[in-house]
Amino acid sequence: MNIRLVLNLLSRGLIFIGIAMFFPLAVSWFYHDGDFPAFVIGIVCCLIAGFIMLLFCRRSKGELRNREGFLFVTLAWTLAGLFGAIPFRISGYFPSYLDAFFETISGFTTTGASVLIDIEALPHGLLLWRSMTQWIGGMGIIVLTIAILPFLGVGGMQIFKAESPGPTIDKLRPRINETAKLLWGIYVSFTLLEILLLGVGGMSLFESSCHAFSTLATGGFSPRNASIAAYNSPYFDAVITVFMLIAGTNFALHYAALRGNVRRYIRSQEFRLYISIFIGACLLLMWNTRHLYDSIAGSIRFVTFQTASILTTTGFATHDFGIWPIASQLILLFLMVIGGCAGSTGGGMKVMRLGILVKYAHREIKKLVHPNAVVSIKWDTNPVSAEVLQAIVGFAIFFILVFVVSSLVMGMLGLDLVTSTSAVIACMSNIGPGLASVGPSANFAHIPDLGKALLCFCMLVGRLEVYTVLVVLSPVFWRR
Amino acid sequence: MNIRLVLNLLSRGLIFIGIAMFFPLAVSWFYHDGDFPAFVIGIVCCLIAGFIMLLFCRRSKGELRNREGFLFVTLAWTLAGLFGAIPFRISGYFPSYLDAFFETISGFTTTGASVLIDIEALPHGLLLWRSMTQWIGGMGIIVLTIAILPFLGVGGMQIFKAESPGPTIDKLRPRINETAKLLWGIYVSFTLLEILLLGVGGMSLFESSCHAFSTLATGGFSPRNASIAAYNSPYFDAVITVFMLIAGTNFALHYAALRGNVRRYIRSQEFRLYISIFIGACLLLMWNTRHLYDSIAGSIRFVTFQTASILTTTGFATHDFGIWPIASQLILLFLMVIGGCAGSTGGGMKVMRLGILVKYAHREIKKLVHPNAVVSIKWDTNPVSAEVLQAIVGFAIFFILVFVVSSLVMGMLGLDLVTSTSAVIACMSNIGPGLASVGPSANFAHIPDLGKALLCFCMLVGRLEVYTVLVVLSPVFWRR
Repeated sequence: MNIRLVLNLLSRGLIFIGIAMFFPLAVSWFYHDGDFPAFVIGIVCCLIAGFIMLLFCRRSKGELRNREGFLFVTLAWTLAGLFGAIPFRISGYFPSYLDAFFETISGFTTTGASVLIDIEALPHGLLLWRSMTQWIGGMGIIVLTIAILPFLGVGGMQIFKAESPGPTIDKLRPRINETAKLLWGIYVSFTLLEILLLGVGGMSLFESSCHAFSTLATGGFSPRNASIAAYNSPYFDAVITVFMLIAGTNFALHYAALRGNVRRYIRSQEFRLYISIFIGACLLLMWNTRHLYDSIAGSIRFVTFQTASILTTTGFATHDFGIWPIASQLILLFLMVIGGCAGSTGGGMKVMRLGILVKYAHREIKKLVHPNAVVSIKWDTNPVSAEVLQAIVGFAIFFILVFVVSSLVMGMLGLDLVTSTSAVIACMSNIGPGLASVGPSANFAHIPDLGKALLCFCMLVGRLEVYTVLVVLSPVFWRR
Repeated sequence: MNIRLVLNLLSRGLIFIGIAMFFPLAVSWFYHDGDFPAFVIGIVCCLIAGFIMLLFCRRSKGELRNREGFLFVTLAWTLAGLFGAIPFRISGYFPSYLDAFFETISGFTTTGASVLIDIEALPHGLLLWRSMTQWIGGMGIIVLTIAILPFLGVGGMQIFKAESPGPTIDKLRPRINETAKLLWGIYVSFTLLEILLLGVGGMSLFESSCHAFSTLATGGFSPRNASIAAYNSPYFDAVITVFMLIAGTNFALHYAALRGNVRRYIRSQEFRLYISIFIGACLLLMWNTRHLYDSIAGSIRFVTFQTASILTTTGFATHDFGIWPIASQLILLFLMVIGGCAGSTGGGMKVMRLGILVKYAHREIKKLVHPNAVVSIKWDTNPVSAEVLQAIVGFAIFFILVFVVSSLVMGMLGLDLVTSTSAVIACMSNIGPGLASVGPSANFAHIPDLGKALLCFCMLVGRLEVYTVLVVLSPVFWRR
């Protein structure tokens, strides 16, 4: 294991986080609402720690291979959480370092679960930093899932090797650099477009930036206590719904579209399935909640927003879906597990994986009826290799195992059945709000410390496609 | 498709059910409590329908192959439910035919979910018939899972081809006859032994017979409203706990043990895992419920009984586990899904399948760390074939899909979240009681009709190892 190389990359990550903090620092200087020192200390910590690490591991040679890749990715998100939490804790708005860490990990994993009871009490710098952690996390995820994981063979992401834009060199580092630039260009453009569109509707530059950052990352942090409901504006709802759906789409498709190949959307089986699930869920939910809304327009507005928010695992709210009928809540719960497309900033198990799993099961039926037939599973017209299938099945098994064990522990901590299970799902799928006492009108402040730590773990496991974290924690990884 | 052969076999099944009804008929004649005519009508219906079918399909030739096998098994359980329900409905103790059908299917699938509010109001004949449906269902299941399914290639049961006792001829029919006799001998012996042991403790012949029938089938119907709690006897609890665990073990192992090879128990990986899960769950539950019991003896008594009852999917109660802490209820919920060993009368996904799925996931971790290594999955020291793995994975996916869709429909019918989901799990895993309003101290009477019909379907799907029913329902099956 080339630990030096891993540390070298991590040090760059820390320095990047330190530099990113200059933005909220500037905002806090502009608004003068008291969080300036918190960011100064945060920046100093990140830069000092980063440069010391860089100093010790300056001359790192060698290629980033599988094991280093897993370790780097897991540590990168963990360190980002640890150092990104510094301004939150220093500011005094978070009662403990664990709470600040929970909020930051929730940001970098684009989850959006919050321990804050009164969000609007926070100064502007901290609010911006909250949304920025999500935006930076989203940047990381796009590059991770499109440019790194397919080559590490994680969870069937190999299927996207061909989809990834950029040069097809097998070496990881040049590929990452090249791909990152292309994808981030798209990510930044969409963000700027959403800021503009929200601004046109009359939202302040500050709030539209925060919301755009959280939307493109499918994060869900809002500077308002009532989330998007605070504005009660059909225009904002519509704009954000569209951008949530964009953020939940494979960014490699956006890349292809921007290069003129708009039909790639339609040709992508995952995208078609994603849109079908969205429309199907909207229709079911509109029918099931028809007694709650006076007009079809209102029903469409609230239901499409909520469905997009949950399916893409953003977690914005215009509505407390806790008052929806049980069947609707169950639909939302299942949508939470589905999540967005692979290669998007959305969480969950991903549409592609679930689509392939259903095909997998259906193949067994065919085999039972025609025992001698050879039936292959196709995706995007290509047969799916046994390797990819096995990786996807393993992913699903681990996802369920982590869910089972974690919700048991949450139950042991004294939480009720629906809170225990939905909090774990909401964190593993990187959504944010769950049901019952962690629902959209509540928060995670009341969860016991051990539960918060466990949920941080769940957020990391879900965000880093399960394997990345579990591999690093497995004894096999560390055995010579 | 050889429909004549299927009908021929079904007609024999109906005649068998008609003959079986002579036992409750005799009991109702002995006790004179009014259900005599109901059984007379039941017997007449079964025998007439059976003999008419037999008359029309007398000369059926040919071998029972895959498709005929699936159709026969699915129709056999459905018809048993339809005709077995006749005495229940005629007696007037069930408000509708659907209710009587629910109770009967719950019997033949060894589930034990009941729509009865006052069980003790029923006459003796009906009570015996309730328990007998379970016992007959258990007989069917043992032969199905040990002698038929491994050869139909259902859900990875092929793994047990070598385990099955009897001659190793590949033709199905002679094998079934031979195997059935051996296994039923064991099944009957255990039943008689339990009747004897319960009788020694002072239970009446009638009640000990009913309980022994339900125990060996892991069914859970009791002639008492309070189930086993009615006796409040540590002796009965202990005897029934042991026999539940016996019933949840692969009967092929009992067969080997009775032929002198007692070490086959220890050599069976599934049995070791089954006992480990049992002990592990008992310890966790004892720790989690320690504040509820005065003495360790009491804790051991209630916890081991409840754990065995849920893990083996029997569903007897000595206790309302609805008052246990949430974590304990979650543990029970997860145990429900695990179920007994393959080749037992227990339901659920089966210990073997879950053990193999965990190994499957772990293999992926190994492959990520050592991308070029070939890692095979072993069970009972033999490598598991890709065919078996695929069948098991498909099984799990279908199990989850049926669960998701069914609990959504239950939610649509207006049931609460915990009732919707736990009723579906309790029926799919053939346990009986779930949580909340279908918990051990409640019943299924209040479920809307559509919900009862759906739960009947869930019981059949779970009992017939998922594929058997789904194959028959799939368009592929009926296409030429």
